[in-house]
Amino acid sequence: MKKYLLAPGPTQVSPEVLLAMAQPLLHHRAPEFVEVLKRVKEDLKWLFQTQNDVLIIASTGTGGMEGAVSNFLSPGDKALFVNGGKFGERWGKICKNYGVLTEEIKVEWGYVVKPEDVAQALKKDPSIKAVFTQASETSTGVAHPIREVTEVVRGYDDCLMIVDAISALGVFEVNTDAWGLDVVVSGAQKALALPPGLAFVSVSEKGWRQAEKAKSAKFYFDFKKEREALAKNQTAYTSAVSLIVGLEQSLKMMKEEGLENIFARRSRMATALREAMAGIGLASFPKESPSVSVTAISAPDGYDGQEIYKNLRLKYGITAAGGQDHLKGKVFRISNMGDLDTFDTIIAVAAIEMVLKGMGHPLKLGTGVGIAQEILLAK
Amino acid sequence: MKKYLLAPGPTQVSPEVLLAMAQPLLHHRAPEFVEVLKRVKEDLKWLFQTQNDVLIIASTGTGGMEGAVSNFLSPGDKALFVNGGKFGERWGKICKNYGVLTEEIKVEWGYVVKPEDVAQALKKDPSIKAVFTQASETSTGVAHPIREVTEVVRGYDDCLMIVDAISALGVFEVNTDAWGLDVVVSGAQKALALPPGLAFVSVSEKGWRQAEKAKSAKFYFDFKKEREALAKNQTAYTSAVSLIVGLEQSLKMMKEEGLENIFARRSRMATALREAMAGIGLASFPKESPSVSVTAISAPDGYDGQEIYKNLRLKYGITAAGGQDHLKGKVFRISNMGDLDTFDTIIAVAAIEMVLKGMGHPLKLGTGVGIAQEILLAK
Repeated sequence: MKKYLLAPGPTQVSPEVLLAMAQPLLHHRAPEFVEVLKRVKEDLKWLFQTQNDVLIIASTGTGGMEGAVSNFLSPGDKALFVNGGKFGERWGKICKNYGVLTEEIKVEWGYVVKPEDVAQALKKDPSIKAVFTQASETSTGVAHPIREVTEVVRGYDDCLMIVDAISALGVFEVNTDAWGLDVVVSGAQKALALPPGLAFVSVSEKGWRQAEKAKSAKFYFDFKKEREALAKNQTAYTSAVSLIVGLEQSLKMMKEEGLENIFARRSRMATALREAMAGIGLASFPKESPSVSVTAISAPDGYDGQEIYKNLRLKYGITAAGGQDHLKGKVFRISNMGDLDTFDTIIAVAAIEMVLKGMGHPLKLGTGVGIAQEILLAK
Repeated sequence: MKKYLLAPGPTQVSPEVLLAMAQPLLHHRAPEFVEVLKRVKEDLKWLFQTQNDVLIIASTGTGGMEGAVSNFLSPGDKALFVNGGKFGERWGKICKNYGVLTEEIKVEWGYVVKPEDVAQALKKDPSIKAVFTQASETSTGVAHPIREVTEVVRGYDDCLMIVDAISALGVFEVNTDAWGLDVVVSGAQKALALPPGLAFVSVSEKGWRQAEKAKSAKFYFDFKKEREALAKNQTAYTSAVSLIVGLEQSLKMMKEEGLENIFARRSRMATALREAMAGIGLASFPKESPSVSVTAISAPDGYDGQEIYKNLRLKYGITAAGGQDHLKGKVFRISNMGDLDTFDTIIAVAAIEMVLKGMGHPLKLGTGVGIAQEILLAK
């Protein structure tokens, strides 16, 4: 059976990137690789829409998140974090491990954080040194209004806006400099369509100033050391050479398509999937602001979401994702990240219909597909 | 735009085979490669359903066809060939180049050869030394009744049944020994889902006896020399090493699935495509016995088949095939060979619907897809 990877990370890697990574290994200090890093450094700035350097770290995105805490805060510092899902929760856990005192904005799963709640929390405690949130919360399929939250945070000179954009950057607009995001973390295995193993972090001047004062223990995720290395087109430790060569190829292809075109295409695919599901009576799980990156779909009444997700894999070779924690069995999730295009959305819709049919659902096959086709028609 | 290869050869190559072929090159006389050839030799017998050796030649299928003429016939010999399309025509051209006197059974495109016509021709001229035909005529999408034709030919001790099964073997039943096929030619880039560059030929004992008498000029396609080399697990000239390593992987995967399962799956996919097309009013071009290997679809009245084929590529990244000769503009063709499965059929149907819609066709999107889904539902 042919296999299809439609999970929200790791995502499908294009043949072009796989081929680039299959090339003979470069030494990480070889002149040829220094040139690769030089190009990648510039292209990452383009992707992040920033004038600041984007650090490249050999770890998954979580390593970037840890560094985004340890490099900017000291034990005893106060931080505010948005907890609207599994990944929001993670910000809180990292802060706790570093002795950072946290204020939590608990958001019901499926909803977005309200900027006014952030405003109120900061007003109540102006000593808060950082606000942590996700751009796209992968566990619930919700996109938080980070632009609006950042406007609130910018009113506080000593507070940083730190965004986990791991599953957002390159899928929908995250404009680092224009919006004033201080720290943006991303990763390889989501929108960049690479195998896991790289984290990317951009830091604003405001961020670097605060980093001077941070006293948290750190060694591998020392951003200052990475910044110095990057100035010489190097990484502080051994570079993940093959992944970075793949990154160069991935960024090259993204630049050829252009950010606006990418965002429009991904948005069209996400809309097609959502509308197709609605057409066969399956609701989108998010109650507001569904993310383009991943579509969380509520299992219809009487059907187990885990069963749908398992059947997709066992009967049709499709790896999607189930629900996490209390959403287990209630939702299943389909990625819109990675090397996916028009017909991957068609595959997802057709397969979901076929799985439901096999489970006894009375839907008419092709109904959702027809709706998706309509939205995906080439101009 | 993501690309999809749905042409009737070259066909999609699986990642597993691409990976096998990307391995460091073996020398063609290295002990390790001799072992590869040994295994491939056995597996080809399995695929051809024969006890005879299957020769492996570094050429496309046409080279195998040429050898199937030059190794068994002498100038002035008489041969009968079935001409029901571009590839039937080719048998006639090769025979002519070798000074073989040909009797032609002209079959209208879209129809199959009638075994009684072969019987009549052989009865009329019992000196005919070979009957040439296709198992699947790729230009028209028709499968000839080679089993029945072979029964006729078996009545003549000095006449060989020579079959071009290039786009048939491994897609539907071609039972070399049980049916008594004397010479069966196949190629890499069709059902075997390899890049082009290999021809395979099985020869019966009756065939080898006739080969002793054949006086046609030949050098590279000298089957006797290949047979001797194969006995030592070699090829007569330099082996196409990477392709044969890929072949080993492809055969391994086919054996894992099993011939019966492969035939059932391919048949289901071809039926799904045909029924889906019928459901949106598009007729199958073959008037009888549509081949499982490739589906030739008649363009609906008022629509140009070449335009459909071009739009599939330009608007949706799908490479299908147009019509050949007088069918140009009248049909377009979709492959069912190569590394294709359930959702490639769905892609084909969805894309054809979308292309027609874009050309102003009034069809309801999803109609054909729904029909295909119904047939492709996993048990």
